[in-house]
Amino acid sequence: MKIDLNADMGESFGMYPMGDDDAFMKYISSANVACGFHAGDSSVMRKTVGLARRDGVQVGAHPGLPDLQGFGRREMNLTAEEVYDIVVYQVGALKAFVEVAGMKLHHVKPHGSLYGMAHRREEMAQAVCRAVKDIDPRLYLYIMKKGLIGEVARTMDLRCVFELYADLGYDAQGNLVITRHHEVQTASEVAVRVVRMVKEGQVRTTNGGDIAIEGNSVCVHSDTPGSIEIVRAVRQGLEEAGFQVGSPIL
Amino acid sequence: MKIDLNADMGESFGMYPMGDDDAFMKYISSANVACGFHAGDSSVMRKTVGLARRDGVQVGAHPGLPDLQGFGRREMNLTAEEVYDIVVYQVGALKAFVEVAGMKLHHVKPHGSLYGMAHRREEMAQAVCRAVKDIDPRLYLYIMKKGLIGEVARTMDLRCVFELYADLGYDAQGNLVITRHHEVQTASEVAVRVVRMVKEGQVRTTNGGDIAIEGNSVCVHSDTPGSIEIVRAVRQGLEEAGFQVGSPIL
Amino acid sequence: MKIDLNADMGESFGMYPMGDDDAFMKYISSANVACGFHAGDSSVMRKTVGLARRDGVQVGAHPGLPDLQGFGRREMNLTAEEVYDIVVYQVGALKAFVEVAGMKLHHVKPHGSLYGMAHRREEMAQAVCRAVKDIDPRLYLYIMKKGLIGEVARTMDLRCVFELYADLGYDAQGNLVITRHHEVQTASEVAVRVVRMVKEGQVRTTNGGDIAIEGNSVCVHSDTPGSIEIVRAVRQGLEEAGFQVGSPIL
Amino acid sequence: MKIDLNADMGESFGMYPMGDDDAFMKYISSANVACGFHAGDSSVMRKTVGLARRDGVQVGAHPGLPDLQGFGRREMNLTAEEVYDIVVYQVGALKAFVEVAGMKLHHVKPHGSLYGMAHRREEMAQAVCRAVKDIDPRLYLYIMKKGLIGEVARTMDLRCVFELYADLGYDAQGNLVITRHHEVQTASEVAVRVVRMVKEGQVRTTNGGDIAIEGNSVCVHSDTPGSIEIVRAVRQGLEEAGFQVGSPIL
Repeated sequence: MKIDLNADMGESFGMYPMGDDDAFMKYISSANVACGFHAGDSSVMRKTVGLARRDGVQVGAHPGLPDLQGFGRREMNLTAEEVYDIVVYQVGALKAFVEVAGMKLHHVKPHGSLYGMAHRREEMAQAVCRAVKDIDPRLYLYIMKKGLIGEVARTMDLRCVFELYADLGYDAQGNLVITRHHEVQTASEVAVRVVRMVKEGQVRTTNGGDIAIEGNSVCVHSDTPGSIEIVRAVRQGLEEAGFQVGSPIL
Repeated sequence: MKIDLNADMGESFGMYPMGDDDAFMKYISSANVACGFHAGDSSVMRKTVGLARRDGVQVGAHPGLPDLQGFGRREMNLTAEEVYDIVVYQVGALKAFVEVAGMKLHHVKPHGSLYGMAHRREEMAQAVCRAVKDIDPRLYLYIMKKGLIGEVARTMDLRCVFELYADLGYDAQGNLVITRHHEVQTASEVAVRVVRMVKEGQVRTTNGGDIAIEGNSVCVHSDTPGSIEIVRAVRQGLEEAGFQVGSPIL
Repeated sequence: MKIDLNADMGESFGMYPMGDDDAFMKYISSANVACGFHAGDSSVMRKTVGLARRDGVQVGAHPGLPDLQGFGRREMNLTAEEVYDIVVYQVGALKAFVEVAGMKLHHVKPHGSLYGMAHRREEMAQAVCRAVKDIDPRLYLYIMKKGLIGEVARTMDLRCVFELYADLGYDAQGNLVITRHHEVQTASEVAVRVVRMVKEGQVRTTNGGDIAIEGNSVCVHSDTPGSIEIVRAVRQGLEEAGFQVGSPIL
Repeated sequence: MKIDLNADMGESFGMYPMGDDDAFMKYISSANVACGFHAGDSSVMRKTVGLARRDGVQVGAHPGLPDLQGFGRREMNLTAEEVYDIVVYQVGALKAFVEVAGMKLHHVKPHGSLYGMAHRREEMAQAVCRAVKDIDPRLYLYIMKKGLIGEVARTMDLRCVFELYADLGYDAQGNLVITRHHEVQTASEVAVRVVRMVKEGQVRTTNGGDIAIEGNSVCVHSDTPGSIEIVRAVRQGLEEAGFQVGSPIL
């Protein structure tokens, strides 16, 4: 029983730190590294890839909308072609940092509103999948099982990793409840919730009921207060429940 | 007798056109494509690479300083490490567009003030050369014969292409006279000057005398008034003088 | 019979020219000057205000969404509070250039998608109107007669100028058909259409029928091919029809 | 005996917090608010002005170079005209937020490399002083006593406030030792140093000796670790030494 643990890394920008990537990296198996549009910059990208290499963590690109002030969480009315272009650009930039570090790019995970757009609108799903496939058809695509993009990815024979969100709410339809600021929960609450999702395939929704949920990678956010405690508890919980934390093989 | 003809392409941004790349591409053998920092954007990059492929033109990355308003022509006090990082980032982004178009990246040419910094300051030359070598040691580096970066590139076994500037002035020491706005000359004046540089290895300086000059690629700017006429005249002049216009083999 | 003629000015950015403001300014009575978010920069703003002063043209601020690449024409999901903030910021910046030139700011006209958002969504209309009123309650607000923002502006006692679009299509409901690139028409076609709008209060829609339309300022775009000929024809047409071209008194 | 205590405020950007302005504001008399070029954004500016109003703190504009990634600390080769333009732009933007909050703009203090450029190069000093004077000749200019800009300001009859730096080193010539990251000192060390500067007009240099120093405002940085303790200690130290903390009267 193997499970992947992924987190968004490299979200600092210039003099602005965000998250303690140095500490966080030790607990995860896959890092989604920001590419300079919604967060991160070229120097942060190099350093973050270095941390991942140090800890044996697989590196993926985490492309977002071109809106640093909004952290890629304010939807923008881009055309599908523009979405294709910003994904190729950002994935290419990160791929270079991964390769100069002697590693191979492992996956792509769209960020924030781009993630949402690709799950809801077919032309955006097409644009993201096409960009990933054109760059390297062996790249994993990190997405939610529920959502248009999974179907689109399957028709393109892309390899998908399905995410379970440790610290975001799900509504009764299984959709993520994305807010600009993530909600705070205790580490042990999150760990129990994650183990239940992974082991039983069930999660409590924001409406109070339970729904079935499926995935092979748990996403833990690194920019919430107490996030180090959360990721440590989640990893420990998964290991105690008999799971081995590791990234899908490239 | 073979000579390369290179030009800076892909300098449009968003709704802002710059240069007639569609027409210009037909006359050159190597295109230096802007990477979104000083000019260009991800959509312009994709389109420009498409034009180059159509016309059988080799594509290089043209990374610049992160200053769109200043078009990369206002020197910025970056550290050598920051220079390394912005070069890896931009070259990586463009490389992705070249590769999704089914081509191979051919060269790197630093732009504007970054070009100047890399020719004058050893640590900046080191940073640029190291970035190019780390990304792909077979890439050509487009530089001036005169300048520190040539020596640094040689110690790293980088393959250099030495540029002759069709439409920029040289001072008595053989240094380029770079201004924010390029000076205007007639097409035939430029063509005669270029053929003389290539054939006789001599150029008239801004001070009036002649100096020896050496190179295997002629750079023609595409953003000056009448630039199409200039590049056409230069190519015709070179061919009439017995030269075959073509890019160095990758 | 007096009619205002307004145009978007100052849309150049850095090395990127847009429109021939120097020539265009001679034909209009009110200039909407871009404020550096969707177009323009601080140096362009100073120069554009200088041109307006030279030609006795009233200057308004033309704030837009923070998206230079998209020219403010890609809707972004900003909060009403963020809209208030970007309007205050941009109007304040332009107001400073107007005042150091010894003039008074005359009006505010939201640009592109911000204009559309303020016409369609009440909270956005509130945000824009509140920003204008807080900065200076005597400022004119340039808007379309049809649209929520007019009602909101009336409840706040803001002085409105209602625009007629010389060169954009209207649909059967009187809504503007906004596209990324403006459509091209001949100068005389546009002039005839404008005089009919101003004199008869009627305009042909994109669907072929006629609708009633009302306004006291004609907007002519300056970034279309042949725009100088268009504005000249429009002004001449209006004057020949007995109208005096002039800006509302501050 | 009155002394001003100023600090750089409003340096957060989008989702990136910087400094605890809410707490810091209680201890200072003058706030230099970032204007969105090197730090800050329109929403941060509004909130920061609100905090200043709450605590009766005078608000100044803190314009910087257009380089968010470098936090305005990487010198850029702007022309004097461009410096004038970016100062007018940024001061105008902040002035609007101050005025919609019912206050009056109190001062201007150039930030980082712009501060350095204006102290070392006469044309830059001219550009900054001219911009301040053109906007409002009653504005205070916060500068160092030592440096060209003081002389330029005097010839323009600008009202100057001379700064003493609580937490930056001085070299033997009385020049500030500006680094990208500020050095850390204990709160009591800083407080003792400040009281000595204010009371005795002497400061220990980075070379070990003492030099004479003069000023009527103490600048305390808000982005260093322990900065709240530092500003509290500085204020307490000054008050215990018999000084009243307050801003120059507008």
